Amino acid sequence: MEFTIKKSDILSKLETVSSAVASKTVKPILSGVLFKTLEEKKIELVATDLETSIKTFVNAETLEGKEDFVVEAKVLLEIIRSLHEGLINFKIEENILTIEMGQSFFTLPTMDASEFPEISPTEGGIRLETSVTNLEVMIERSIFCAAKDEFMRNLNGIYWELEDGYLRLVGADGFRLALVEKKVDTDVEDKFLLALKSMKDLQTSMKNASSDKMLIEYDGSRVGFYFNDTEMIARVVDADFPDYKKVLPKAFKTKLIVDSADFMDAVKRTSITARLGSESVKLEIAEDRMELLAKSPEHGEAKEEIKIKKEGEDLTIAFNPKFLMESLKNIDTDETELNFVDSNSPLQMNPVDVEGYLYIIMPIRLI
Amino acid sequence: MEFTIKKSDILSKLETVSSAVASKTVKPILSGVLFKTLEEKKIELVATDLETSIKTFVNAETLEGKEDFVVEAKVLLEIIRSLHEGLINFKIEENILTIEMGQSFFTLPTMDASEFPEISPTEGGIRLETSVTNLEVMIERSIFCAAKDEFMRNLNGIYWELEDGYLRLVGADGFRLALVEKKVDTDVEDKFLLALKSMKDLQTSMKNASSDKMLIEYDGSRVGFYFNDTEMIARVVDADFPDYKKVLPKAFKTKLIVDSADFMDAVKRTSITARLGSESVKLEIAEDRMELLAKSPEHGEAKEEIKIKKEGEDLTIAFNPKFLMESLKNIDTDETELNFVDSNSPLQMNPVDVEGYLYIIMPIRLI
Repeated sequence: MEFTIKKSDILSKLETVSSAVASKTVKPILSGVLFKTLEEKKIELVATDLETSIKTFVNAETLEGKEDFVVEAKVLLEIIRSLHEGLINFKIEENILTIEMGQSFFTLPTMDASEFPEISPTEGGIRLETSVTNLEVMIERSIFCAAKDEFMRNLNGIYWELEDGYLRLVGADGFRLALVEKKVDTDVEDKFLLALKSMKDLQTSMKNASSDKMLIEYDGSRVGFYFNDTEMIARVVDADFPDYKKVLPKAFKTKLIVDSADFMDAVKRTSITARLGSESVKLEIAEDRMELLAKSPEHGEAKEEIKIKKEGEDLTIAFNPKFLMESLKNIDTDETELNFVDSNSPLQMNPVDVEGYLYIIMPIRLI
Repeated sequence: MEFTIKKSDILSKLETVSSAVASKTVKPILSGVLFKTLEEKKIELVATDLETSIKTFVNAETLEGKEDFVVEAKVLLEIIRSLHEGLINFKIEENILTIEMGQSFFTLPTMDASEFPEISPTEGGIRLETSVTNLEVMIERSIFCAAKDEFMRNLNGIYWELEDGYLRLVGADGFRLALVEKKVDTDVEDKFLLALKSMKDLQTSMKNASSDKMLIEYDGSRVGFYFNDTEMIARVVDADFPDYKKVLPKAFKTKLIVDSADFMDAVKRTSITARLGSESVKLEIAEDRMELLAKSPEHGEAKEEIKIKKEGEDLTIAFNPKFLMESLKNIDTDETELNFVDSNSPLQMNPVDVEGYLYIIMPIRLI
């Protein structure tokens, strides 16, 4: 079999599927991309790590013969990236793939396509139409709060919830929580947990999306994301996400409005000293100002003061500055709202006058 | 004591001296910068790791009192970087340095200035005037060939040679060699070896140089670099650099001219496969073309062909592609000259029609 494809076409499609390729695997076939010849010079590309699978199509300029094969994804991607813009010639002969362009010539051994695991698409279940752009923003604003530790299965992911006409994404790691929600056009209610790895694969595969429409389908065990020519199927995690609603603080006693940039600056600077000491920044809130304080036994102290608009009680409370900064980075309004209950209860941080997302951060106990 | 300095002034000067600060040290004082109050609101900044020392001056806007102190360089630099542009206030009281600007406030413990090692300047010896810009280019084009291994004391540095009216810098790691020379206005002859760490400190300290004049002074055991308000003193390495002239190939049998970009591209691409295999790229030189070949037992083959202008014999020879690429990166002419003796002798690579620098690369023995 022989076919030619434009470099830019095959590159973007390979990048889309490659995120699902297993990075460490005992089954070599899972490190590969399946090339499957369809009618009309269409070639299907599939990659999977058995948890997530991504399938897309690329249009060949010319195509002769028909043969399915699997080839190692990482090396192929590197080779394609290294070539100049233009038409690349691919040829399969005796299980060897030859890639040729101008004076460049590569061969790669192929693997047996029949050994590539078949991933069945989702069947029925709930369906939801959404926008790629919206979903990208929602994921970006919640994913950083998910636990990085793979062994914390119920927190190492993002919780999806359809409720009261809202799609809600929640990420939490035991110290903090991110909640992002958007109105959606459905009254179906359901929920599932997707692994962090699947969420990142989804982010990567959406990067090359050329249209904004997306269909999400959930059949009870798998979630399908369908957009452009791409479909990503992810197995949901069989673990219970904690009842996050219990964590959301109520009955605030202190409410502040701060300038987002000033607050970020002040946290950043005090974090220099905090990092060398107890990893904590103390906020002293009184009247129209907030002092930020950090101490290190060997590297002195840091103190910052910013103006605030306050309602309610004075308060002293401490946080890991890293958590404050990571949440602030995802707030793009000029002002940020900080809501406190007391020194031992979580802070709720949210953009001013923007509905639908907030961050909860646990305080560090003051001794 | 109390003084104020503009942020941009203190920052660039701190960056200049900080490269000489010892990174891992058993003597805490060596992780610090010495602040020494001079007359006329001038403050001297000094850092050293005992091998290299860098001294410079910063002008205070206001200054009251007189006190010398040492403060940890890394943390201070990070604090200064984090502050906005403007006037920073420094105050020393009971061995505590207070840094204040607007609503930002830091304290840092200081160390005893009398414990800071005194570095005496060079005395007499040979003197050479040169240009900062020239020297920067010469160092950049030779330093990447120096051995990274600190235990190879005689190769873990750059060899300086004044001979026949030329200043010559040579770096070598046993597999390759870089030689860069420039005509200089002196008939003095001498040579010394400077550690890679000293060379890198020199590179960093030159980055903020605002004028181009430099004086180099060598007194037999130390080299002084004097430019702007900065002086860097480096101890020479007490080890013999190998007789590099013996390595320079003579009596070439094959001479090629290649397009630098085409050659780089071809080496880059074949290196993908080479990296996964024997780390070697074979050059097959015949008539008006050169084939580049790489093999990997598991990841197939790569082949590239480029046009050449050849004088002399056909030849087959193999190299580590990384060495070819690193040298090529430092050749900025459109064409590159490749000179060969035979398959087992080093290649000499140099820019076409540019005098004064060349790279020697040992071949990999073909089996």
